[in-house]
Amino acid sequence: MSLQAITASVLVIGNEILSGRTQDINLNHIATTLGEWGIQVREARVVADIEEEIVAAVNELRSRYDYLFTTGGIGPTHDDITAECIAKAFDEPLVEHPIIAKLIRARPAPDDIMESRLRMARIPQSAKLVDNATGGPPGFRVDNVFVMAGIPAVMQAMLASLDGKLKSGPVVRSRSVTAYLGESQIAAKLGEIQDDFPDVDLGSYPFFQKDRYGTSLVMRGTDEAQLDAMLEAVKEAIVSSGENPHDIQRG
Amino acid sequence: MSLQAITASVLVIGNEILSGRTQDINLNHIATTLGEWGIQVREARVVADIEEEIVAAVNELRSRYDYLFTTGGIGPTHDDITAECIAKAFDEPLVEHPIIAKLIRARPAPDDIMESRLRMARIPQSAKLVDNATGGPPGFRVDNVFVMAGIPAVMQAMLASLDGKLKSGPVVRSRSVTAYLGESQIAAKLGEIQDDFPDVDLGSYPFFQKDRYGTSLVMRGTDEAQLDAMLEAVKEAIVSSGENPHDIQRG
Repeated sequence: MSLQAITASVLVIGNEILSGRTQDINLNHIATTLGEWGIQVREARVVADIEEEIVAAVNELRSRYDYLFTTGGIGPTHDDITAECIAKAFDEPLVEHPIIAKLIRARPAPDDIMESRLRMARIPQSAKLVDNATGGPPGFRVDNVFVMAGIPAVMQAMLASLDGKLKSGPVVRSRSVTAYLGESQIAAKLGEIQDDFPDVDLGSYPFFQKDRYGTSLVMRGTDEAQLDAMLEAVKEAIVSSGENPHDIQRG
Repeated sequence: MSLQAITASVLVIGNEILSGRTQDINLNHIATTLGEWGIQVREARVVADIEEEIVAAVNELRSRYDYLFTTGGIGPTHDDITAECIAKAFDEPLVEHPIIAKLIRARPAPDDIMESRLRMARIPQSAKLVDNATGGPPGFRVDNVFVMAGIPAVMQAMLASLDGKLKSGPVVRSRSVTAYLGESQIAAKLGEIQDDFPDVDLGSYPFFQKDRYGTSLVMRGTDEAQLDAMLEAVKEAIVSSGENPHDIQRG
């Protein structure tokens, strides 16, 4: 039986990523985590805190992939416009969610501060909550769109709460091997091997390390037997190019 | 005189970013560098090594922004399809560029290896070269699209070669200040300050550090006087919330 691939996209919302002030690390964590769950991230975008841009990207990505995960823009300040944008994308009103509001009201504050904090309780009408084990307000889900915080520790907690609750397909496994060869020295053989195993993705990633250059060859696919067979073919190609395979890994 | 903003987008091409195997650091470098040159990165995308995806993203981004910078997929192996995709996006033939071919042929190699290396000489017909001071094959430019390597050190060398050769607009400057306050404690005042200075972007980025939580307030805009005035207003807001402004920076 061949399971259908389940796909996802990631939308990073935030001027601070596009200005270069902040290095995004959320995409990498989401891609790795979803990969382990049998969900393949196929595309990612980074957009600014601009309503039309966010709404357009959300609508494009949610229709194209099984899931969309967004990060950023769900705090209490004026630049946190993600919830509003998701509501617009789904053409739904933004309403105060009683559970989030109760959670926020449990911690007393002066009126003006409470009013700002309650902004975080306003989510699209049909949204369901996404747990936040760090203790702050939860994220939320509308249909196939998951809306998470931008702070990595908070985002990671929200994502972890979804473990086991999403559709999943076959898990993509990998094999990798390092060759201390220039890519060109092995390129022709790699092309032939890729042709022989059309269902396994063979990537070649050159690197420079100290005085040595080399290439990491990474095989990714869902069929363990094909992965092993391709790994053997790649190892033979390295040997026949006069080198030895190093650092073989299975993932 | 108010200069027109010059905008850019970044397209990161590579399965290894979407699988989570590699943490992208190119977007951050490009955003920071272009920012210093007076070019504002407005959007970024990450796509897989799939021709239709790359061609579609290139055509969308090159028409929407003044510049598009791509990274990845220009090596000699079968999975390096960026040059072909750029040619398709511009409906141009891919041809062997005599200068790159000469550079590659200067380093002798057996026929099969030379053939693989010469793949890197094939670029779209109207392409102009982008220098690569690391000594490898150059990148290239077609119209407003700059095609660069994925290896960060090589990409950085290619980008550096463009210094002074691109259109530029006003440089976005910044002011930042840290408040050891929760975002909600200052949110209402920040919203008012943002309304008072519509041309300066005021971002609020909460953080947790050791036992303290706080908020970085970042102002970005092209008018130094407005930035300074907004910074004063933000400092006053922090003081009136019972805290002191810390770590003031000008960029």
